[in-house]
Amino acid sequence: MKVFLIGSNGQVGKHIVKFLQESNKHELTAMVRSEEQAEQLKASGVKAAIANLEESVEELAEVMRGSEAVIFSAGSGGHTGPDKTLLVDLDGAVKSMEAAEKAGINRYIMVSAYKAYDRESWKDSPIKPYMVAKHYADRMLVASDLNYTILGPGLLLNEPGTGKIAVGEEIQKTSIPREDVARTVVAALDEEKTYRKTLEIMSGHTPVEDALKRL
Amino acid sequence: MKVFLIGSNGQVGKHIVKFLQESNKHELTAMVRSEEQAEQLKASGVKAAIANLEESVEELAEVMRGSEAVIFSAGSGGHTGPDKTLLVDLDGAVKSMEAAEKAGINRYIMVSAYKAYDRESWKDSPIKPYMVAKHYADRMLVASDLNYTILGPGLLLNEPGTGKIAVGEEIQKTSIPREDVARTVVAALDEEKTYRKTLEIMSGHTPVEDALKRL
Repeated sequence: MKVFLIGSNGQVGKHIVKFLQESNKHELTAMVRSEEQAEQLKASGVKAAIANLEESVEELAEVMRGSEAVIFSAGSGGHTGPDKTLLVDLDGAVKSMEAAEKAGINRYIMVSAYKAYDRESWKDSPIKPYMVAKHYADRMLVASDLNYTILGPGLLLNEPGTGKIAVGEEIQKTSIPREDVARTVVAALDEEKTYRKTLEIMSGHTPVEDALKRL
Repeated sequence: MKVFLIGSNGQVGKHIVKFLQESNKHELTAMVRSEEQAEQLKASGVKAAIANLEESVEELAEVMRGSEAVIFSAGSGGHTGPDKTLLVDLDGAVKSMEAAEKAGINRYIMVSAYKAYDRESWKDSPIKPYMVAKHYADRMLVASDLNYTILGPGLLLNEPGTGKIAVGEEIQKTSIPREDVARTVVAALDEEKTYRKTLEIMSGHTPVEDALKRL
């Protein structure tokens, strides 16, 4: 699958780059904002496209054309200013969905936040504005014609992944290494059991590929 | 018509209160955040309901029940912090739409911003995050089952209204007194020509009621 990755410099994104490079099923194009970042990626054998989420839908569609799937793993994680939250996590995300549709790409994987769809679960959250942005980005995705998978991880950890997760529609919030989120994103790309679903993911006891197949 | 007004203390909202009080077609309930604001309104003969946009959809539906139309005229105007923009202009607005549906209210009038639907028109705006919030609130409204009217005024002025406007789907941006925006909102309530439309409004040469009837 030809995969277009948005957010390749992020903490989850870097692991996604690694897993896609290792994969012999997929071919990666990583979107980056600067020539410098593009050069760094090219040096490690990754194809890069220079663009940013504040460009127009048309410009984004142009760089995406030829890809078969989009992964959205960009974002502030709630700790940049709320201005950026509106421009990147919400409008940037939705523009990338519209760009995917315009470029004839059907598959779209969103790295979202735990239960972003459920206002009651984050009504007292310290990062509530960020959750609002993720909530509406996800709603726009569900309402689109794209074949989506929305992944809502628990507390993100930097420790090495175990390759084992719990995944489903009603998983209690614990935590998960970023590396395992990335592994799940890549495994979900062509796993039909994940199509048009919103799923929570946590550390668990089942190897990623098996966990997805059992959905 | 029994009208539920959100944003009655705003600069446009205060004029809406006045026009609804003068009207013998409509009956107003104004949503306010504090007991003190409620007392002030009651003293001038206006029925008030205490609630705020950070409450749940269920709580908002409860205070709206029995009304036949909702007017949304709340908002930061782009000059409060972007946190509030996400919580009020976007999530607050959409919760009020969901609450209206839950309460069996079909008519909904949104005081929006000039061409909020058209990203290209505000891509370099100094209040771009605010425009993003209005953009998605409006999109959620258009996608809802509500019988909406979205009004996008030009530059808002505090001078007295003239009672004359230009209204339509492709009106060039000039300016309009807040009082004339309010007059248009109230006249649109039961004007079928405005149903399920997104309209720009500016100062013009045609009395408000006539301008709406000619749509």
